Amino acid sequence: MARQSLEPSRDPADYTFTHRLRARFAETDAMGVIHHAAYLPYLEEARVEYLRAVGHPYDVVRGGESEDAREFPVLEVSVQYRRPLEFDDEVDVALRIGAVRGATFQIAYLLSANGEPRATAVTVHGCVDGRGRPARLPGWVRDTAGAATAPPAVRSSPPS
Amino acid sequence: MARQSLEPSRDPADYTFTHRLRARFAETDAMGVIHHAAYLPYLEEARVEYLRAVGHPYDVVRGGESEDAREFPVLEVSVQYRRPLEFDDEVDVALRIGAVRGATFQIAYLLSANGEPRATAVTVHGCVDGRGRPARLPGWVRDTAGAATAPPAVRSSPPS
Amino acid sequence: MARQSLEPSRDPADYTFTHRLRARFAETDAMGVIHHAAYLPYLEEARVEYLRAVGHPYDVVRGGESEDAREFPVLEVSVQYRRPLEFDDEVDVALRIGAVRGATFQIAYLLSANGEPRATAVTVHGCVDGRGRPARLPGWVRDTAGAATAPPAVRSSPPS
Amino acid sequence: MARQSLEPSRDPADYTFTHRLRARFAETDAMGVIHHAAYLPYLEEARVEYLRAVGHPYDVVRGGESEDAREFPVLEVSVQYRRPLEFDDEVDVALRIGAVRGATFQIAYLLSANGEPRATAVTVHGCVDGRGRPARLPGWVRDTAGAATAPPAVRSSPPS
Repeated sequence: MARQSLEPSRDPADYTFTHRLRARFAETDAMGVIHHAAYLPYLEEARVEYLRAVGHPYDVVRGGESEDAREFPVLEVSVQYRRPLEFDDEVDVALRIGAVRGATFQIAYLLSANGEPRATAVTVHGCVDGRGRPARLPGWVRDTAGAATAPPAVRSSPPS
Repeated sequence: MARQSLEPSRDPADYTFTHRLRARFAETDAMGVIHHAAYLPYLEEARVEYLRAVGHPYDVVRGGESEDAREFPVLEVSVQYRRPLEFDDEVDVALRIGAVRGATFQIAYLLSANGEPRATAVTVHGCVDGRGRPARLPGWVRDTAGAATAPPAVRSSPPS
Repeated sequence: MARQSLEPSRDPADYTFTHRLRARFAETDAMGVIHHAAYLPYLEEARVEYLRAVGHPYDVVRGGESEDAREFPVLEVSVQYRRPLEFDDEVDVALRIGAVRGATFQIAYLLSANGEPRATAVTVHGCVDGRGRPARLPGWVRDTAGAATAPPAVRSSPPS
Repeated sequence: MARQSLEPSRDPADYTFTHRLRARFAETDAMGVIHHAAYLPYLEEARVEYLRAVGHPYDVVRGGESEDAREFPVLEVSVQYRRPLEFDDEVDVALRIGAVRGATFQIAYLLSANGEPRATAVTVHGCVDGRGRPARLPGWVRDTAGAATAPPAVRSSPPS
């Protein structure tokens, strides 16, 4: 894999935002644990909550007029599974944004349950406009990634 | 469909428990709305939160020793889609349990977003023990269903 | 559920088309069987293969210019689970179309594995144009439904 | 990501087995393409067909008595998305097994549609017995991986 450069650590202090979710029964498999493919929607759900927390809800980002609308398609993903997640686990998905390069950026993730690391992951994102054409990254993504190198830990709340 | 007898109403006051969840981007489809198959895990997630709220978390119910463990497999499901759900909608899944007959029971659901009904559904459940053999319904299911004919509306909180 | 009128039988001879698929490991759950929500994409996959077999591939049906394009959103679904499907089962999804009423039609399904019925289902579909507005059913849907009352059994081939 | 060492090429001739599948409508998302998480079950489906083709169907491998049963949990996955897959695309998932090290092995993948590369991927697998304890890799995995460095291209057939 070419582009990925972030190294996701197992120390929650290295992340700037955490979203908690609950592992669904529908996401288990016949090994009795959460199926490995179910982790990708977990990462996505955490990204969406992060965008909301920094004031740029993804449905608004996507919903602008064609020139202003932006989508951040996933160009690469990698996940390292360390210990299984199980049904009904409360999963803390911690993330930090970084490695802004041209029109791409990366996000590192740490998934924990009961305070123990369960998986780490990295996604690489591009940026396209409302017609699917490559587009400039909004300035706030760059700013957010810069700010993310600073320590402040934000804790999300689930939908209320 | 033979067994289903509950009639899910569109009046939230007819339900005894509500769980709120957030529609995921991964659950959308190329029509731009939440794919119809994604509603079934929504119903399940609400059932699981309901069991937790009434003091019988499903992982505990499932996890007992073989004689005591119980699972409630879905024998039937029906969903009536009224208006689409969209990405990032906050979905209120209201439910009430009823129609306990022998070792089966039914659950009626109303899914709403922005205070508007989006879908109604019914699931019919059986009861099996830890080895998958048909088993007696726990008394608390029967009690819960009886109590559910009374009005008290419980409001769930999302994972916290 | 109001609209559904088809009664899906357990006799394969009552169906006009069969699509075979293989149950995925990702579709299993911690009970060791195929999760009940996974059946809905099975029904959809069979519908798509049916449309292809009758000369109206769904991507063509959907892809016309706005006035001619048609989508058949699911208005209702019901599934009766009779015996579990398991990982790696070859599943025969038999279907027949019927109950054309105004701009809606219904499809009945029988899911079998190893020659044994595992589930029956019904879906009710509407018809919208490329802008999502209610639209007339294409004549060929009506014709297909009429033809489906006659016996000819068509056997699909999987992707080749 | 620590362990992954295979480099998936974009030349189909570098792979030893190909499985063809059809992209489902349920797997699309609101960007109008196949959602990135849906690729992981595609890889898994191809692995399962590969095991069948080399005479070791995964349900048999998993189903032995506790001492002999083996599962190959995914320890790592990475996917590089090059061009989107769309609804109804016929997807060729080519794979080769390699990098056997102790009780782990890796698989490289190339996903193509219409003869064009759409994605590459690598999975890293462990080996556990029927009780989930780390276990020796079956000899045939090692043999298969060795054979995979030789050129013979096997073409799978879909379920028939």
